[in-house]
Order: sequence, then structure tokens, then C-alpha cells
Amino acid sequence: MSVTNASPAQAAQAAKSASHVLATLPASARNDALTAIHSILSSSRESILAANAEDMDLAKKAAADGQLSSSLVSRLDLSKPGKYDDMLKGILDVRDLQDPVGKVSLKTKLDDDLILERVSSPIGVLLIIFEARPEVIANIASLAIKSGNAAILKGGKESTRSFVAIASAISKALESTAVPNDAIQLVTTRDVIPELLALDRLIDLVIPRGSNELVRSVKEGTRIPVLGHADGLCAAYLAADADPALAARVLVDAKTSYPAACNSLETLLVQESALATPVFTTAARALLAAGVTLHADGPSKSAILASVDDAPTAQVVDVQESDYDTEFLSLDLAVKTVADLAAATAHINAHSSGHTDLILTSDPAAAEAFLAVVDSAGVYWNASTRMADGMRYGFGTEVGISTNKIHARGPVGLEGLMIYKYKLRGTGQVSLAYGEGEGQKPFKHEKLPLN
Amino acid sequence: MSVTNASPAQAAQAAKSASHVLATLPASARNDALTAIHSILSSSRESILAANAEDMDLAKKAAADGQLSSSLVSRLDLSKPGKYDDMLKGILDVRDLQDPVGKVSLKTKLDDDLILERVSSPIGVLLIIFEARPEVIANIASLAIKSGNAAILKGGKESTRSFVAIASAISKALESTAVPNDAIQLVTTRDVIPELLALDRLIDLVIPRGSNELVRSVKEGTRIPVLGHADGLCAAYLAADADPALAARVLVDAKTSYPAACNSLETLLVQESALATPVFTTAARALLAAGVTLHADGPSKSAILASVDDAPTAQVVDVQESDYDTEFLSLDLAVKTVADLAAATAHINAHSSGHTDLILTSDPAAAEAFLAVVDSAGVYWNASTRMADGMRYGFGTEVGISTNKIHARGPVGLEGLMIYKYKLRGTGQVSLAYGEGEGQKPFKHEKLPLN
Repeated sequence: MSVTNASPAQAAQAAKSASHVLATLPASARNDALTAIHSILSSSRESILAANAEDMDLAKKAAADGQLSSSLVSRLDLSKPGKYDDMLKGILDVRDLQDPVGKVSLKTKLDDDLILERVSSPIGVLLIIFEARPEVIANIASLAIKSGNAAILKGGKESTRSFVAIASAISKALESTAVPNDAIQLVTTRDVIPELLALDRLIDLVIPRGSNELVRSVKEGTRIPVLGHADGLCAAYLAADADPALAARVLVDAKTSYPAACNSLETLLVQESALATPVFTTAARALLAAGVTLHADGPSKSAILASVDDAPTAQVVDVQESDYDTEFLSLDLAVKTVADLAAATAHINAHSSGHTDLILTSDPAAAEAFLAVVDSAGVYWNASTRMADGMRYGFGTEVGISTNKIHARGPVGLEGLMIYKYKLRGTGQVSLAYGEGEGQKPFKHEKLPLN
Repeated sequence: MSVTNASPAQAAQAAKSASHVLATLPASARNDALTAIHSILSSSRESILAANAEDMDLAKKAAADGQLSSSLVSRLDLSKPGKYDDMLKGILDVRDLQDPVGKVSLKTKLDDDLILERVSSPIGVLLIIFEARPEVIANIASLAIKSGNAAILKGGKESTRSFVAIASAISKALESTAVPNDAIQLVTTRDVIPELLALDRLIDLVIPRGSNELVRSVKEGTRIPVLGHADGLCAAYLAADADPALAARVLVDAKTSYPAACNSLETLLVQESALATPVFTTAARALLAAGVTLHADGPSKSAILASVDDAPTAQVVDVQESDYDTEFLSLDLAVKTVADLAAATAHINAHSSGHTDLILTSDPAAAEAFLAVVDSAGVYWNASTRMADGMRYGFGTEVGISTNKIHARGPVGLEGLMIYKYKLRGTGQVSLAYGEGEGQKPFKHEKLPLN
């Protein structure tokens, strides 16, 4: 890893060149590099935590002066119990994942001795822009090396000392490995993000890790593809035939288990005929008891006040139209009454951010219709939206959650850092030999096993 | 299909809404629509050709005035022998391809009665921008309907009458089918491309079909993902151990079988030790005999003039450095002498457009090294670069050839018009039930057969 004061273009050019070496290394060489990184970060714990403590001192002062949020200061702290060990464990977890490079996904005999293969290969150069959390650098460097991608890392200025300490250690570790040092570039110069985002000939994919504002500003400032999501505006449709206890349990988990997460629930669509029944009132009671403020439309508000005994009225407020487009990230939930499934899916397809949406119903046909028509990365039946997560899906890691409509969608594992190339191995074949003309022959197009 | 004078935003909104219906139709309904389109375009041949003749009259006049190129006029002509029949056959060919919608590519039991599926689904709304060839409209409409995507079509003004005639016929055909008319929008108003390219919340993918200039201007003018390639700068590396006859045959096909194609050869890298041998001179002789002008560097020029008897000296000219970055699209070939494989791949990774690159060698180890290190969509060993084509690869159709580093790369078939969604079917599971804490349990993450 180079801790560089080079210009963004120089860093990107160095990363591009290194990516061509990295892409050809065998899995063992990439894994050995991760082992070396793990080992040096273990032995450098003290000096890295000392650097982090300096960042923390400055950040605390800035927070005291009101220049930094206390949540940012908290995310900066590497000395929190378990955090450093989690970072170390994460490196080995990534190392031990299946190698994503060189997987053959298509093999066709075009003709005798003319074999086409589609083989997974690294995308090339990743640009990772992140904010305060310094442990992300080890995670991202691991993911990049494992997947054979070069990476340029740009962190927030609050964690510069921590980054430089971690980066220097990683750089030292890589010296003894086959992974080129230039494959991981740490850019510490300030205000270079616009310059980096303009390098669309050298950088192949941008992954912003941080606040909605960060993601949105990155997406708006570049023609490089961006993997991520600005918003997680998840909705649930509560049908009148849902199981009341099941629905209440799922809704409470989806709304309250981690309200600041992108996969948390923000909108509840209630079928009109459910309003006066235990289906809705059980859910409303459970949500209110869990401390949720319901931003309710007229019919749902009336139903709550009429049917939920001693409803805490401060937690039942009039909804604003804009609430249906708001990612609260807090214990607030917008509630809307809809006539039926069609109205619910129309609302979701118009207002959802395409992250994860849910139907609560006992009717399999209605559930399947919902899963088919809702155009979101995750479409769920009777399970909490909080399941939308790479670890929970069994990917072993999570690069991010994408609401893009191409390449990778939903929780993204290592696969999202891969593309493919076509390898064609022939024995002198030429295009003019094939066709329907005289002396020409057809292709064989015989599918071969992928083994 | 709507032939619309609606605003671009209205057309895109209508397409988006229709896409949600189209995405849920069974394959039979989408196929029936293609049958209906085929049938009406067969019976409307006369009126469509009459409209095309009007376009042709105007285009010929414009060409006579020097306002249009004669090649554009030629591409406009639907009455060329076989062209209309090919268009009709193409619709049925697309109809008879395997259904790309609803394919399950991952199935995992997260826990008992909690099953995750990754299912292929349409991307949403495609924007297709094309130039003169009016038959593209039938092809693209077929591909969109087959893949469950809505599409907005914007054609060149020279073919407006042909487009409107074809579009009206398709619109009439769709009336009797389950495919919503709004799913295919033809925009005929002029100068709306910038407006369309700004609609990144409604349009999910842009596919420009036409000249390099069109593709480049589209790529530079939008944040919507663009599928395609601006340049096809293909290179071959001729190693000293290549079979002379094989190499000459492949190079002549790659350069001359269709020089204007994106998969044609533009640069020949010759190993220095091959210069004075039959490996190079056989190839040079064959290329010159096929009418190719060789833009040669010093060493290769000397070798040609010294070793190729009666070489036509007008066809051996001094190379300019910029020739190595030029897509000639003509019978011109830049020739450069390189020391070895490493120098060749370094040149290619710096100058190639990432389309298709070739090594000619008898050494399997060198070939595999080339295929691994060259970062292009197609990497070939001893076969013509002209093989880079969706039909030749056996995809049954070609949406385009992509030099992108994400989503789809190389010749793109119907798969390139698909993304996936995650369907999670549960029985009331919540996130807080899983983990390593007290009372929590681990996920099962059991892979299930895809069948």
C-alpha cells in the first residue's frame, strides 16, 4: 500500500498498472498477502491505537467546539471493546472465502478446437470513499486483494492518523508478498474527491461507504459506476389476512431493531379492511409499545385511537405527504391506508428506493404477486426487512447494498467486485469460414460442462 | 407501442409504469406479442416500404446536396434484397430464445421455512438511441418485450417516416396482446436526447446503436448506465514462435473481412525476433496482397522492405505515434515492434479499448499468460478477432458489444438486459432471533438445488 501525496491521477495510474499484475496472481498469493496483513496489524496494535488516540483527542476537541458530531467521534474510536479484534478477524474471514477469480460460467464449443470460455475476472481499479470508521481500510483492502482488484482509498480527514498508521503497516506487510504495493493506494491529500471522480478512464467502480449525503454527492459527481445506495426507504404492506401476532413481531423488528440502518422500515401500508381488525390494532399496539411514533393518515389514525386502548396520543401524529418519501432512520413510521394489493404495490413502486419491501399476508397467491410486481432489490414475504444484509444472506462479507438496476443489486458480496472476460482458444479459425454461403460451415455452439 | 409527441418525461413515466406490468407477464404472453408483431409487419410490408421510400427520396436529395453521407442513405434502405425478410425472421428468432426472466441463480435456506432466492428480472426501462437503420426498431422492440423490459426508442430524423409506419403497425399488434402499449415508446420529437439522458430516475439503461460519435456523446452526456462501446481498437501480438500460415490467415481475416466493424484489427505488435523470419514476412505479404496499408515503425518497415519481394511501397508507410490509438475502420494497420510478450501486453493494456485482443503463438504457456494479463472483454489465442459477436458466440442475438467493466462485457445477449431480485419467503422470522447472543441462533445458510 502506498500512502501517497501523489496527485490523484498519478495514484490512479499506479493503481491501474498494479491491477494488471494483481489480476494474474494465484489465489494462494492473494491469500498469503491477507495473512501477512493480519499478522502485522496484530503486532502493530499498540502503535495504531496510539495514532487513533491522537485522532480521537482532536475529534473530541472539535466535538466540544460543536464542529463534529458525537456519533462521528464514536465511529472513529478503534479502542472500543472488540473493535480491533473484529477488524483482525474480518481479514481472515475474507481470506477464507471462496476465490472469486477465474470461475468459468460458460463454456461453448464454437467449432472443433475453437472453445469459448467466460471467466470471472477482477473489475480493475476501485475507488473507495469513506468517512470516519478507520477499520474500514483493513476491510476494504482485504476485499480488494481477495478479489484481485486494485483500490484507491480516500478517508475522512478526522481519521488521518489512524489511516496512515494502518496503511503503513499494510504497506510493510505487502513488501514481503507478491501483491504490488501500488495495488492499494491511500490518498491523504484533502479535497481531491472531485478530481478522483473525474478519472473515469482509470477508475472502474466507486464504492462510497458512509452517510446518505456522501453517497448522493458521489453519485451526482461522477460518470464512473457507483455501487451503493443513497436511500433505504423500505415499506411493508399489511394485508387484512395477515396473522396478527406474526405481523406485529415482524414489523417491530423491522422498525425498531436498528432504526438507523438502511434496511429498517419507514412506511407501513395498511389494507383498509384491516384497519378495524386485530391485524392492524395488534401491530399498532406493539409498535407504540416499542416507542414508535406513528405518522398516520386519517383512517389509520382513527382506527388506532378507536381500537388501541390507552394509545399514547403523543405517538400518533398526522402524517405529512412528504413522510412517505422520508427515510426517518429513527423510531418514526409513516402509515398509509390503501384499498388493496394493487394500490400497495403502486405506492411502493412510486415511492420506494428499491431497497427492500415486504408483504405480510397469509395468502400465497397475493404474496407471489407482490414479489413479482414490486421492483426492488429485496422483496419479502413474512420476514423482517432487516434480513437484507450480506452476512445474513450467507455471502460471508458485504461490500455494500446496491439499489442499482445493473451489475449488482441488494446486498453485494465479493461477486459484486467481479466482471468476466471471454477467452477464446482456437487453432487458426477465421470468421469468413462460417456462415451460410458457399464453402462456409455453421458454428457448432455445443455447450460444454463447466466442471 | 405509442408513437408519442408527449414530453420525454411523460414518455419515460408511462414506460416505467408499463414496465411493472410487463415484468410480471408470463413468457407465453410476451412471446404471443412477438408473434403478433411479426404477423402485422408481414402484412404491412407494402405500406411500410412506401413510407421508407419517402424517407429515401428525401435522404437521396439531401445526399445530392452533400448534407447526408451516401452510406447513411444506404443504411436507411429497407427495400434492399433480403433486408425486410431478415427483420421479420429476427423477430421470430428472438421469440424462440430461452426465456431470460425468472431464472433462479441462487437458493439458500437461511433457516427452516426461511428461503432466499435470487431470481432474474428485467432491468426496467431501456432507452435506445439509434441512427438511420429503421429495421433496428423491430429488433429492439422484440428484445425488450422478450426480456420483459419497457423501452423508449429514439431514432434519427432521416428515417422518421419508416419508424412511424413500423411503430404504428407494432402498436396495432400490441392492442390485441397482454403487453401494455406504453411499454414501447417511440419518441419522434426532435432534439430531446439531452432531456431523455437526464431522466436517471425513470430510465435504467441506455443503449446507443450507431457511430462512435453517437456512443461517445451519449456516454458523456448522462449518469444513466450506458451499454456499448465507443471504440473497437483491437490488437494482435505476433510471437516469433507462431505458425506462419496460421498467423497470416488469422491476421488477414481480422483486418480485411469487414474493416468497418468494431472487432476488426487495428494494431499489429510484432516480436522483434520474428521480424526477419517467415512468421512476420508471410503475414506482411498476405496483408499487403489483401490491399492493407501497413503503418510500420522503423524495424518492421525495414524488415518488410528487405524481406518481402516486390512489396508495394505505397502500402508501407511510416507509422505516427497516434496511429496506435486510432481505430482506422479501413484497410490500414498500425505495426509496432516489441521485445517480448510483456511489452506487448503492456502496450495493449495502455492503448487497447478493451474490446478484443489476440495472441498468435505456438506456446500454450505464453498464450495463457496473455489471456490472463490482457484486460479486455475478449482475449483470443490463434483465432480471428472478428469472432467477437453475439451470434458467433451462440447467444442467438446481440444487444451490443460492451467495453464496460461492470454488468455485461463483450458481446451482450439477452442476459445483458436482465438484473435480479432477491425473494425471501419466511414465516415470521425477525433479525433479533439470529446471532451469537443469548437466546439467539445461527443462520443455517444451506445451499439448495436450483432446479
